[in-house]
Amino acid sequence: MTRSILFSKAGDPEVLEFVDTPLRALAANEVHIKVKAIGINRAESMWRTDVYIEPVTFPAGLGYEAAGIVQAIGAEVSDLAVGDAVSVIPSFSQNQYHTYGEEIVMPAYAVVKHPESLTFEEASSIWMMFITAYGALIEDAKVGKGDVVLIPAASSSVGLAAIQIANYAGATTIALTRTSAKRSQLLEAGATHVIATQEADLVAEVMRITDNQGAKVVFDPVGGSDFPKLISALAFQGIAYIYGALADEDTPIPVLTMIAKMPTIKGHNIWLTTGDETRRKAAVEYVNEGFASGHLRPVIDRTFEFSQMIDVHRYLENNGQFGKIVVKV
Amino acid sequence: MTRSILFSKAGDPEVLEFVDTPLRALAANEVHIKVKAIGINRAESMWRTDVYIEPVTFPAGLGYEAAGIVQAIGAEVSDLAVGDAVSVIPSFSQNQYHTYGEEIVMPAYAVVKHPESLTFEEASSIWMMFITAYGALIEDAKVGKGDVVLIPAASSSVGLAAIQIANYAGATTIALTRTSAKRSQLLEAGATHVIATQEADLVAEVMRITDNQGAKVVFDPVGGSDFPKLISALAFQGIAYIYGALADEDTPIPVLTMIAKMPTIKGHNIWLTTGDETRRKAAVEYVNEGFASGHLRPVIDRTFEFSQMIDVHRYLENNGQFGKIVVKV
Repeated sequence: MTRSILFSKAGDPEVLEFVDTPLRALAANEVHIKVKAIGINRAESMWRTDVYIEPVTFPAGLGYEAAGIVQAIGAEVSDLAVGDAVSVIPSFSQNQYHTYGEEIVMPAYAVVKHPESLTFEEASSIWMMFITAYGALIEDAKVGKGDVVLIPAASSSVGLAAIQIANYAGATTIALTRTSAKRSQLLEAGATHVIATQEADLVAEVMRITDNQGAKVVFDPVGGSDFPKLISALAFQGIAYIYGALADEDTPIPVLTMIAKMPTIKGHNIWLTTGDETRRKAAVEYVNEGFASGHLRPVIDRTFEFSQMIDVHRYLENNGQFGKIVVKV
Repeated sequence: MTRSILFSKAGDPEVLEFVDTPLRALAANEVHIKVKAIGINRAESMWRTDVYIEPVTFPAGLGYEAAGIVQAIGAEVSDLAVGDAVSVIPSFSQNQYHTYGEEIVMPAYAVVKHPESLTFEEASSIWMMFITAYGALIEDAKVGKGDVVLIPAASSSVGLAAIQIANYAGATTIALTRTSAKRSQLLEAGATHVIATQEADLVAEVMRITDNQGAKVVFDPVGGSDFPKLISALAFQGIAYIYGALADEDTPIPVLTMIAKMPTIKGHNIWLTTGDETRRKAAVEYVNEGFASGHLRPVIDRTFEFSQMIDVHRYLENNGQFGKIVVKV
């Protein structure tokens, strides 16, 4: 028997239930992992309330990230062995696989040996944040030296990963945050510039910083009524990625600015990268090299215990963290 | 002295004034054209009300398209001769050049010898509509055989050009129109399918036509509150171009659909193509070949006299036309 977290209806964090269940038999391409740490994502909160990009089949598990030790492997798994320290790449449906458990079953393609320098907590925290940012900034926008990248919700785990990856690529980063409270933390985290959006004129500040050229890329998980300002802060033919829906209100686009400046707005999520074997492997290699060279590093806001998962989701939804929330198992 | 149309303040069609002025001396790279016909565009109406993508410097002229006969050429103009029948490619600022006049000065790069089969009225009507559609559908989206292209405001000149160009490329076209009134006209104009958006469920109809795959491309000059439906009607990783702002209200984007389906939304205008010499020449060649082979043809809604220009703008702004409005000079 193993303890897992399941939920049988959509709702507040209280719908999460701790359930003891037998671990199911492994298919030929699956891996059994004893979990040491779980990385927590906004996607799981959207999943729990059944407003994620895929409808929930109840009863459901949840969770995209974990790190732990391989306990058993299926007959066709060749590149992993019992006892390996591994972590999980978000690359599956939570209707099929999930990581909130003491022991979990994963498809082998989603399991990698992470950099040895990382603790289990760190290893459980890195893949969603770094691959999501890598997919937009490196794979798609091909950000490089001299490019300016604008990063709303910069204190989120993916925002902080975007700062690191843009810096690693030689770009200039402008971190957006609501107030000045996290300014020094964001500068320490690598942001070249920080704009407190409730205290300054976002567009004017970006234009001042960029000599009126605007940013090449915006990487936004918020949307909402401020989205037109992000488009106004873009350079001619710049790109805005939208990879989250944190704002409750409508997200308008400024049509005349669109026609004049001819920007691109792209929906983005990690599956574009991790759903394809070649791209997933290239992403893992990129992130591993970033860690090996010291250009990338985990940013953990706070570590909780597995038994506190309901509090973890409440904490996540307060949007106050700086970096990743991790749960020790 | 030549009669031109100028305006000295932004406003309703009545701000347009007929003014007799001396024609200015030609610069080395300019051409003097005796105008026979003028093509009328929504861009000029936006220009007249000073809500276009570039602010107006008053007093201003207006007009992007014309056809006529070369009267004189500047010292450095080599590929045109006095007496040539020519037309004008929209590729300049109306603050600098404009076509609403009996005689006009144009930069030589914007002047081409059009297909001989075309009348002056026809030649004055084709470049804005066909190059705008070509830039999005052919240059950028590379539409081809089997692709489905969704065309809102299909009865507009650019919409009709998009139908022809998508057909020319082997694609399937779905024309959107508000009511069934123009259905048979749109089918005759080449649309594979027509959806009357006030009478049918747009998304359901597109999904029915495309076996639930959605359209590869949307080519939209409207925006507004129906824009999210266009995104919902797109295929996975489809592209929506927005090249006009006909709707008065906000244009929201459906963020969750964006994240799930990862479409691209691009602002588009003709300058991306005509502002670059190589791309402009390729576009002119493409359109000329389309006319030579009979795949492309003008669609003129109605022809007015030069003296009726105020009525012409009123008629344009009623949005009732089917194809291009042309003025004989």
